[in-house]
Amino acid sequence: MTIALYAGSFDPLTNGHLDVIKRSSNIFDQLIIAVGENTSKNNLFTPQERVNFIEKATQYLPNVKVIGYQGLTVELFKQFDVNVLVRGLRNGTDLLYEQQIAEMNHFLDKEVETVFIPADPKWNKTSSSLLKEVIMMGGNIEGLAPDYVISAMKSRLKK
Amino acid sequence: MTIALYAGSFDPLTNGHLDVIKRSSNIFDQLIIAVGENTSKNNLFTPQERVNFIEKATQYLPNVKVIGYQGLTVELFKQFDVNVLVRGLRNGTDLLYEQQIAEMNHFLDKEVETVFIPADPKWNKTSSSLLKEVIMMGGNIEGLAPDYVISAMKSRLKK
Amino acid sequence: MTIALYAGSFDPLTNGHLDVIKRSSNIFDQLIIAVGENTSKNNLFTPQERVNFIEKATQYLPNVKVIGYQGLTVELFKQFDVNVLVRGLRNGTDLLYEQQIAEMNHFLDKEVETVFIPADPKWNKTSSSLLKEVIMMGGNIEGLAPDYVISAMKSRLKK
Amino acid sequence: MTIALYAGSFDPLTNGHLDVIKRSSNIFDQLIIAVGENTSKNNLFTPQERVNFIEKATQYLPNVKVIGYQGLTVELFKQFDVNVLVRGLRNGTDLLYEQQIAEMNHFLDKEVETVFIPADPKWNKTSSSLLKEVIMMGGNIEGLAPDYVISAMKSRLKK
Amino acid sequence: MTIALYAGSFDPLTNGHLDVIKRSSNIFDQLIIAVGENTSKNNLFTPQERVNFIEKATQYLPNVKVIGYQGLTVELFKQFDVNVLVRGLRNGTDLLYEQQIAEMNHFLDKEVETVFIPADPKWNKTSSSLLKEVIMMGGNIEGLAPDYVISAMKSRLKK
Amino acid sequence: MTIALYAGSFDPLTNGHLDVIKRSSNIFDQLIIAVGENTSKNNLFTPQERVNFIEKATQYLPNVKVIGYQGLTVELFKQFDVNVLVRGLRNGTDLLYEQQIAEMNHFLDKEVETVFIPADPKWNKTSSSLLKEVIMMGGNIEGLAPDYVISAMKSRLKK
Repeated sequence: MTIALYAGSFDPLTNGHLDVIKRSSNIFDQLIIAVGENTSKNNLFTPQERVNFIEKATQYLPNVKVIGYQGLTVELFKQFDVNVLVRGLRNGTDLLYEQQIAEMNHFLDKEVETVFIPADPKWNKTSSSLLKEVIMMGGNIEGLAPDYVISAMKSRLKK
Repeated sequence: MTIALYAGSFDPLTNGHLDVIKRSSNIFDQLIIAVGENTSKNNLFTPQERVNFIEKATQYLPNVKVIGYQGLTVELFKQFDVNVLVRGLRNGTDLLYEQQIAEMNHFLDKEVETVFIPADPKWNKTSSSLLKEVIMMGGNIEGLAPDYVISAMKSRLKK
Repeated sequence: MTIALYAGSFDPLTNGHLDVIKRSSNIFDQLIIAVGENTSKNNLFTPQERVNFIEKATQYLPNVKVIGYQGLTVELFKQFDVNVLVRGLRNGTDLLYEQQIAEMNHFLDKEVETVFIPADPKWNKTSSSLLKEVIMMGGNIEGLAPDYVISAMKSRLKK
Repeated sequence: MTIALYAGSFDPLTNGHLDVIKRSSNIFDQLIIAVGENTSKNNLFTPQERVNFIEKATQYLPNVKVIGYQGLTVELFKQFDVNVLVRGLRNGTDLLYEQQIAEMNHFLDKEVETVFIPADPKWNKTSSSLLKEVIMMGGNIEGLAPDYVISAMKSRLKK
Repeated sequence: MTIALYAGSFDPLTNGHLDVIKRSSNIFDQLIIAVGENTSKNNLFTPQERVNFIEKATQYLPNVKVIGYQGLTVELFKQFDVNVLVRGLRNGTDLLYEQQIAEMNHFLDKEVETVFIPADPKWNKTSSSLLKEVIMMGGNIEGLAPDYVISAMKSRLKK
Repeated sequence: MTIALYAGSFDPLTNGHLDVIKRSSNIFDQLIIAVGENTSKNNLFTPQERVNFIEKATQYLPNVKVIGYQGLTVELFKQFDVNVLVRGLRNGTDLLYEQQIAEMNHFLDKEVETVFIPADPKWNKTSSSLLKEVIMMGGNIEGLAPDYVISAMKSRLKK
């Protein structure tokens, strides 16, 4: 049985994330989605809100589980018998940085392997930060994130 | 008739921007240069100052017009009958990010097309932020921006 | 009036090319598509066949004209009063090579400017050479090129 | 159960390939290594020789199986109940081309997902073609491929 | 005699820096390591601490000298009869930015040449900022920086 | 004393090569230019012709010496007491491939270090193969290679 871990800040969930989630849920026996509760980062949504967004979107996927976590990603490997760390690959992804992180994680724990999963190229434009920028300027991003996420972003960003 | 739009923060105008402006003015029937008045960004010059710098440098180009704007770039398309958005391409340009933005703009309005114009490679080094850094440390950047822009940068940056 | 030139070998036309053609026809007043008759290259289709494929696909676009040519692309500029050379930009495009060619063309004739037009990312996979490879191995590429082009590729490639 | 497929020409097996094989065998329940028997390519070793090299190096890995194949890689998916295609990622890998191929394979069969596995960066230099070049010029590549592969390369390349 | 200059913030020294230092000390007759005392940057260690870390690690290299400096790097060229500026090249290095800086330095003083030295790829993951992040989250980076540097980072970062 | 080696096929010498040669001659005490006599490659000029072109262009540089060689570049290191291998870096350079080669050379002989020297960006377009292509199609490349090299290319390429 192969257990995969997809970790990130997911602030908030986009349809690009969801594409990687569906592909991973299809490839692997189990998928754990771990939402980073790093307190130093300036996030728009609380860790619990970010977990809720993903749980709502993935409730129909029986092999997906969403958790919050703090500290190093590699510490989740032993705790959850994880086999592999999943990273989404968009055209806008800084691959050289991602490779650095993968090599560092493998250095911290020799059991930690990383795989990169290319998302559908139509999600190239769908980074959480770009969506937030567009909403702040009044743009319509319907179709790039779940509707309830877009609603939450709008009420949070437009005072 | 083809109307092109060249939008940016131009904080301040450099000779790299001017190279893209001259090439665009040569290619297209009309060129609108739109200076972003985004208030959240930490700019060195006011929107009006940035508009003035460009107007002074382009007064001899009859088909160029400079404006300030707020909000989404795509909103200028209908307002000014724009056909195409122009982006300069330097060696230091983050093309993957630029492609994301181009795809997002096309998503926001299907009429919005983007073209990338390669600047002369001698302007690779001429980003507004690098020029500001060099001036703050006392370097001489004569030839990389119009003289009146360099003077203004000096008096603003060296107190 | 802005006249654009889109030159290439088009061996054969793909839907990725067609996306660049439609966008260019939308942006510019006139678009000339120039099919390279370079005899040294090992092409699958004759220059006339390649011209015919494009003419059939663009007959509904009144401002598009297809021609064959030999020699340097820059020589078409004066002959057809061209303002700008158009290059399609896919994720698989070797941009550094494209920039070299753009700089060389500008060197050969200072009037020659190049713009890069990003195609829809769904055409990333649609290079002529990859389509030929897939057809040779019996794959179905319906939707990646006009049907009559796919038929012609099949009868040419599968003896 | 997750079944992964690692396809390539392996002409011949290097320690970079072996690194990807070991990592994949560690991550996935089963790993099928498929050696392309594409007759048009100018290979140094026969398909059977290339299969033998890999079988010898992986005989201690119970969940790894080596096969030869012809035609499209995606055709192996249904035949072997494959869940995911594995591609090794070295610093020298042309990722944009790899993404094209991954998108094409997903287009040909919506069930076909690809993951990229970064190899240890010490194998950056270990491409089959570079090893062949070095051996032809008399260099010592001990440690970059299994000893029996290096011996076979030497006797094949140095007449 | 060739005198090389290796300038940076070194906040703090890593084994990746040390790899570039050893290679440069091996290539060039003399190597000056210049620690930037730029006051505006938010550094973890004082300039003197950063100089001390490097002096301790390089005391066995007779042709290496460590200094602190302020202002433009190019100003050190005449002062120390420098022939060439050395920049380390890791997989995570933003080469396009580095080339911009090299071109700017050559513009500021035509005598200033830059060379890029590739570090061993095992140091890809060893950037000062990534090491600081990992230590803050409790990870063990033994082997990626000198032991005394790691101790100092731990006592500074973990209150 | 630092002795640098600049190896390549130089088929033929361009002004981009000359820029790297002048910079290297300025940085290092001695520069050896080694012209590869690899017989398998399909070169336009004989090794002796390529050596002559470079000798003529560098006769005024007292610390530059031109030689022909066969086999592995690293074998020249002991023979000529070389300290460092020089590689030119243009915008069109495939850096990932260059890093592979640098790592391979360091693997073959631990004494072999490589540095990359960025050429002036105006030479981006000046690769030997592109110059040959342009001349074959009748283009004027005056200024991109020494005049006597251009004459030789013309008489060799245009029969």
